Amino acid sequence: MSTKKNIAILGSTGSIGTQALEVVRANPDSFSVEVLTAGKNAELLIAQALEFMPDAVVIEDEGQLSFLKNALSKAAIKVYGGRQAIEQVVQMEKIDLVLTAIVGYAGLASTLSAIRAGKNIALANKETLVVAGGLVTSLALEKGVNIYPVDSEHSAIFQCLAGEFHNPIEKIILTASGGPFRGKDAGFLAGVSKAQALKHPNWDMGAKITIDSATLMNKGLEVIEARWLFQLKPAQIDVVVHPQSIVHSLVQFRDGSLKAQLGLPDMKLPIQYALSYPQRLSNSFRRFDFTEFPHLSFEKPDRKTFRCLDLAFRALEKGGNAACILNAANEVAVEAFLQDRIGFLKIPDLIEEALEKIHPVASPSYEDYVNTDRETRKFADELINL
Amino acid sequence: MSTKKNIAILGSTGSIGTQALEVVRANPDSFSVEVLTAGKNAELLIAQALEFMPDAVVIEDEGQLSFLKNALSKAAIKVYGGRQAIEQVVQMEKIDLVLTAIVGYAGLASTLSAIRAGKNIALANKETLVVAGGLVTSLALEKGVNIYPVDSEHSAIFQCLAGEFHNPIEKIILTASGGPFRGKDAGFLAGVSKAQALKHPNWDMGAKITIDSATLMNKGLEVIEARWLFQLKPAQIDVVVHPQSIVHSLVQFRDGSLKAQLGLPDMKLPIQYALSYPQRLSNSFRRFDFTEFPHLSFEKPDRKTFRCLDLAFRALEKGGNAACILNAANEVAVEAFLQDRIGFLKIPDLIEEALEKIHPVASPSYEDYVNTDRETRKFADELINL
Repeated sequence: MSTKKNIAILGSTGSIGTQALEVVRANPDSFSVEVLTAGKNAELLIAQALEFMPDAVVIEDEGQLSFLKNALSKAAIKVYGGRQAIEQVVQMEKIDLVLTAIVGYAGLASTLSAIRAGKNIALANKETLVVAGGLVTSLALEKGVNIYPVDSEHSAIFQCLAGEFHNPIEKIILTASGGPFRGKDAGFLAGVSKAQALKHPNWDMGAKITIDSATLMNKGLEVIEARWLFQLKPAQIDVVVHPQSIVHSLVQFRDGSLKAQLGLPDMKLPIQYALSYPQRLSNSFRRFDFTEFPHLSFEKPDRKTFRCLDLAFRALEKGGNAACILNAANEVAVEAFLQDRIGFLKIPDLIEEALEKIHPVASPSYEDYVNTDRETRKFADELINL
Repeated sequence: MSTKKNIAILGSTGSIGTQALEVVRANPDSFSVEVLTAGKNAELLIAQALEFMPDAVVIEDEGQLSFLKNALSKAAIKVYGGRQAIEQVVQMEKIDLVLTAIVGYAGLASTLSAIRAGKNIALANKETLVVAGGLVTSLALEKGVNIYPVDSEHSAIFQCLAGEFHNPIEKIILTASGGPFRGKDAGFLAGVSKAQALKHPNWDMGAKITIDSATLMNKGLEVIEARWLFQLKPAQIDVVVHPQSIVHSLVQFRDGSLKAQLGLPDMKLPIQYALSYPQRLSNSFRRFDFTEFPHLSFEKPDRKTFRCLDLAFRALEKGGNAACILNAANEVAVEAFLQDRIGFLKIPDLIEEALEKIHPVASPSYEDYVNTDRETRKFADELINL
C-alpha cells in the first residue's frame, strides 16, 4: 500500500513552489507531485515537469502553451493553459493536498475551487484569507477541508496548537522582523529606493512579500490571516517586533502559558510541515544553535511610522469587504512602487484613501469581492496616474 | 456526575504543596483533596485539613500524632502517623492523582507505592526519577500510570510534546537560570555563605532546591529526570543558561523545528497543568509581557566551575546506581552546607569522592538502591566528620 500524498503545487516556479519541490525531492517516499502550475515561467515549469513527471501541468500565460506542449510532447503529461484550467486541475480526483503558492488575489479562485472539491489546502497564498476569509473558512468547514498554514508565523502557531485544540486561546503573538527599515522615521522612509526595500535582513522571499515586509503590511495581512485561520477576535492578536526572526510566533492559552515555535529563518520547514502534517519528516536543514543567537530581542512595532500595519488592523475592525479593499490597493501600490512610479510612503496613502472611498459591503458574496477588488484597483490606478 | 479529580498531596506544607492547595482553592469544581501528608509541620497541616476536609491526613513525625489527632478530633478526617502510613494512604481507592512533593530520596517509597496502586503521578519529587528512574518508569509502564512532571522545565517539555508523541525527539534543551553565582569563578565560590546561596534571582523555592540551583546540581538532577521521563539518551539533552527564566525549556524535533514553553517564573502554572492535564484551566496568574522582558539571553553553562552539573552527566553516563550515589551524597552535602559544617565547594568534592568509592551496581533492584543510598550517606557523613 502506498502512503504517498498526492500533491498539486500552484505557483511551482515561485519562491515557495521551488522550495516545496526541494522538500518533495528529498522525500520521494512521502510525496508524489501530480499537478504543477506556473504563471509565465515556462522554461522552469518544463524542467520541473520532466523531473517530477506530474499527471498535468498548467501555464497561466496561454501565449506560451504551444511552447510548453512541444517541450513535453514526449512525456506522458497533460498540458493545459489559462486560469480556468488551474481551477479545473486542482479538482482531479487523485489529489490529496493542494499547495496554493500563487501570489496575491490571483490565488483566490483556484483555492476556492480546490476547497469545493474537498481537497486539503497548504496555504501559502495569505491573500485568500485576507480578501475573503469568512467565505473561505466557512466553505472549508462545510467541505471538511483542513487548511494548513505555510506562512512561518501561522505555521508556528499551528505547531503550538497541536494537542491543544480543546484548550481556548487567550491570545496569539505574531513576531515581525521589522524589515529593512526598522527604527527609521517617516522622513527616511519618504526617500527609500526599491533596491533598499528589496533587501530583507532575514528572509529570502519574492518581491511582493519583501516590499510588504518593509512597509509592515505583510504583518498586517498576517494579522487578518490569523484572525480567520484561528477564529480569533482582533483584540486577541498582538504583534511584536523580533529582529532576529528566530521565534516565529507564540500562543498564549487561558492558563497564561505561552508556547512558541523557533528555528532558523528557512521557509522549507513550514512548507515541509504543511505537506507532512501530522508527521514531522527528518531532514538536513541547518539547526538552530543558541550560541549563534545568544540574544533575542523584542520590541513594540511603530504603528505610527509604519502605517500599513495600523491600516490592516483598521480594516479588520471594519470587517465586510474592507480587507479586500486593503489588499487590492496594496497590490496596486506595491506594483507601482516596484515600477518606480510612486514613493514608499505613497503605499499607505493610497490604501487609506481606498479604504475611505470604496463602497463598503457588510456581508460580501464572492461576486461582491470580485467587484470590490476590481473597483479598488481601478480607483488606485487612477490615483497613481493623476 | 462529578468530574472532580480526587487528589492526594504528599508534602502539603512545603513550597509545592502550599502552592498546589492555592490552585485547588481557586478551582473547587475541578479538584477534591482526599489526602494530605506532611513531615513535621503539624500546625499548618491542621489548618489545611480543616479548610479542605480531606478523607485522611498523615504526619510523618509520629511524635506529633496525638497533637494532630486532638486538633482534628471533631472533623470527619482519618489521622495517621509515620512513613508507612503515607505509603498506605496513597493507595486509597478513590484517589485519581498523587502529587508527590516530598523533598529528596524520602519521596521514593511513597511514589512507588502510588504507582503500584495504579495512581497517576504529578511528580514534583525529581529525586524519585534520579535515584531509581529505570525502576519507576518500567513500573509505571506496567501499571499504565502516567507521570506528569511538575518541575517547570519538564512541564515545559511535556507541554511542547502535546500532540507530538508520535514525532521523534531530536533533542531537548533544558534552560537554567544560572543561579545566584552565574559568572563567578571557583575562587569566589569557595567563600560564599549560606545566606548568599539561598538568594535565588528568579524562583521562590525550598532551601534544598535553592542550594541545588546555586551549585547547578538542580540542573544536573533535572537532566537525569528528563532522561527517564522522556526516554532520551544523554547526548540528546542540552543545558543552556537563560538568566531571565522566561523560556522554561525547549524540544527539537527531527525536522529541526523547536518548540518552547514560556511564562513568568511561577511554579503555580506547572503545578496547575500537572493537576489539570490535558485541560488548561483559566486563572488570574500575572501574564508575561515582552515589554517587561525585551531581551532574552542564552549562554553555555560553565561546567568547569559548576562541577555538580558535570558530575550529574557523568553519573548518567555511568548508569546503574551512580545517580543514586550522586543524589545521596548531594543531599548529605547540602544539609551539611546549610548547617555551616562545610563550604560551598565541598559539595562537589564530596559527591565526586562518593561516585569513585561507592560500590557500583549495574542493574540495581529496589533493595540495591536502598543499600546504595544508606552506604553513600554513611560514607559522606564520615568524610564531613573527618
